[in-house]
Amino acid sequence: MPKIDGQRLLRDLYALREIGPYKTGVHRPTLSPDDVRSRHWLAERLTDAGLVAEIDGIGNVFGRCRAPGQKILMGSHLETQDHSGWLDGAMGVVFGLEVARALGQGIDVAAWCDEEGHFGSFIGSRSFCGLLPEEEIDRCTFRADGTPLRVALERAGFAGRPRAQLDPARYRGFMEAHIEQGAELEDKALRIGVVTAIVGSHRFRIVFEGAQNHAGTTRMAVRKDAGVALVSLAAAINARFPAIVGPRTVWTTGRITLNPGAPSIVPGGAEMLFQFRDTDPAMLARLQEELEALVAEANKGPCRVTIVERSKSVPQQMDASFQAALDRSAELNAPGLHQRMPSGAGHDAQVLAERMPSAMMFVPSIRGVSHHYSENTADADLVLGCQVFADAAAEVLG
Amino acid sequence: MPKIDGQRLLRDLYALREIGPYKTGVHRPTLSPDDVRSRHWLAERLTDAGLVAEIDGIGNVFGRCRAPGQKILMGSHLETQDHSGWLDGAMGVVFGLEVARALGQGIDVAAWCDEEGHFGSFIGSRSFCGLLPEEEIDRCTFRADGTPLRVALERAGFAGRPRAQLDPARYRGFMEAHIEQGAELEDKALRIGVVTAIVGSHRFRIVFEGAQNHAGTTRMAVRKDAGVALVSLAAAINARFPAIVGPRTVWTTGRITLNPGAPSIVPGGAEMLFQFRDTDPAMLARLQEELEALVAEANKGPCRVTIVERSKSVPQQMDASFQAALDRSAELNAPGLHQRMPSGAGHDAQVLAERMPSAMMFVPSIRGVSHHYSENTADADLVLGCQVFADAAAEVLG
Repeated sequence: MPKIDGQRLLRDLYALREIGPYKTGVHRPTLSPDDVRSRHWLAERLTDAGLVAEIDGIGNVFGRCRAPGQKILMGSHLETQDHSGWLDGAMGVVFGLEVARALGQGIDVAAWCDEEGHFGSFIGSRSFCGLLPEEEIDRCTFRADGTPLRVALERAGFAGRPRAQLDPARYRGFMEAHIEQGAELEDKALRIGVVTAIVGSHRFRIVFEGAQNHAGTTRMAVRKDAGVALVSLAAAINARFPAIVGPRTVWTTGRITLNPGAPSIVPGGAEMLFQFRDTDPAMLARLQEELEALVAEANKGPCRVTIVERSKSVPQQMDASFQAALDRSAELNAPGLHQRMPSGAGHDAQVLAERMPSAMMFVPSIRGVSHHYSENTADADLVLGCQVFADAAAEVLG
Repeated sequence: MPKIDGQRLLRDLYALREIGPYKTGVHRPTLSPDDVRSRHWLAERLTDAGLVAEIDGIGNVFGRCRAPGQKILMGSHLETQDHSGWLDGAMGVVFGLEVARALGQGIDVAAWCDEEGHFGSFIGSRSFCGLLPEEEIDRCTFRADGTPLRVALERAGFAGRPRAQLDPARYRGFMEAHIEQGAELEDKALRIGVVTAIVGSHRFRIVFEGAQNHAGTTRMAVRKDAGVALVSLAAAINARFPAIVGPRTVWTTGRITLNPGAPSIVPGGAEMLFQFRDTDPAMLARLQEELEALVAEANKGPCRVTIVERSKSVPQQMDASFQAALDRSAELNAPGLHQRMPSGAGHDAQVLAERMPSAMMFVPSIRGVSHHYSENTADADLVLGCQVFADAAAEVLG
């Protein structure tokens, strides 16, 4: 069996952590100077590992194995959320690098650009899978300041390069390792999660139109309070959903805005950002139906309620034989300390899964923290996780 | 009976409308250059009317009658809400000016500084009534940019002047005319409202503390979603209050904030600005009790809910004999087209009412709009209202 070098793995993770450090985490938004530095750093490490390194026209970094035969593609992403953790994405990339070194051949490594969505939705992995048209690139802008993606690619020095395209014949499949971003493994004192499926999500903006008025002079009977309509719908969702959801369904109202948002003005407008996630397409359809029924009911009140679909992703099942290999490898390296589980978060693997067999593996997140600079995983779990990943890849490559 | 000059009244209102115009309304925040110009404009008009004009150390504008004998103090405010209406405040001030001219004597005019609360709460009228300590002035800042009130008064040229103080022996009482800011008069095709009482209000910030988490990876069972806690309390208020309130009680959630407010993050914090108003102190106490009970109930959930009192004002009854004089004057000038009604909005008259007999009169607001640049009242209603006000003042003065 291949033996990974735990110290080398940790050294690389620590080195990457020094590119754009923020408190105990990292601030490395997509195509920021630090993010571009991290891509060049990775390309150098891939070259050192004997791979053919390339950064393509969308900012994806590849390290390709020179040996013949089918490969496993392995990776994740390098950019981070703002002022966020050092492992979210970076760990999966460095696992790929280390497994490539440990196995000597059969592994291609990829760092997908912008999994974190600073410019768009999975633009790097979708580009590779032939799912990102040029016109969409034209429209993408940096969410923080509106800089066009084209301009950012130009500044990074990546504009004009070809965008690498998937050759399905080259690959046995795709494997992505990631931190769990939840506390389930830690709560159960487990060390490895083998992902069964990545949830699909439906995301909405729900808009309420009423009539803005003075909060002192407008009697309750004549009000068209958009905030009251919003609270009423949100409460109805929270009352009705538990009766129909599955054990893993999640639903979230992440933002509420009342307009104009002044203490003494009856809100004339309101908006909520709402989403739900599940691994079962039938459940997602059922929830959408329920949401639409509740919105129809809400429209019987004095305000107009409209539902706008922001995005919709379908659940992706992970490949059964990869899962079985990961199970065996986990049992070998951490007997009894692993489980199968869905991924509640979206990952590049859900895009790759549309084109080839794909798999994901989780390591524990301390206290379940993610998207925060205090995100962390025990060094021992990082080393164990990489060994499990390497053994599983070796088994799949046969 | 005194006869007001309707054309002169409208000319003055139109002139004032040109100081800080915004669309069909006015943008004249307290002590802004336009607001200061409007105060000097008024002082000049008061001088022209034969009154002794003064702008005092808090920005109040006065026009004092030189004749002996008890006076009626009459006025409202000059500053506006941001990008707001041309009549809210200004009308009451110009009614005072016109009635002073029409009666020839017996009227003092006042424009109270900052009724709209850009810096504080009724600082002008409270200063005049001896209810604004120097230390509170030290703490007041402009809500939009934090400029200290002391600095704004200095820039306006009013710093260092004495703050005029009420001499109760001088006055028979205070009268304030105002737009209704609601649609009740219009709905009933009435032209004059005689105010019975000004509501008291209790205003709160309700704070919810939960735990911020990933909206995909955090199962519903372990969430401490501050937004869910907020929606649940707001819905409970809307469900419970109707059973206990009076016919004129109003309650409003004007702002809701979820923290961090991102679509895919379970909110770790939330806040709502909540208020209720009524003319009956016992009802206000009952509502406060109910709110506290609901918050106590909310604290049984996974989030911590705290209630912070932002401000509390007591209901103020308007003087009975002034009301009777306004009734008679309204019946004389607009037979059958007037009613008694409470004021749901706060006004300087509620401050003056703490020190002397006070009265308010409303004219219709077209479609009930206020705190918006489209706020308006028919010219004929402005002229009629001023005549009713003048006749009532003449009767009170004997």
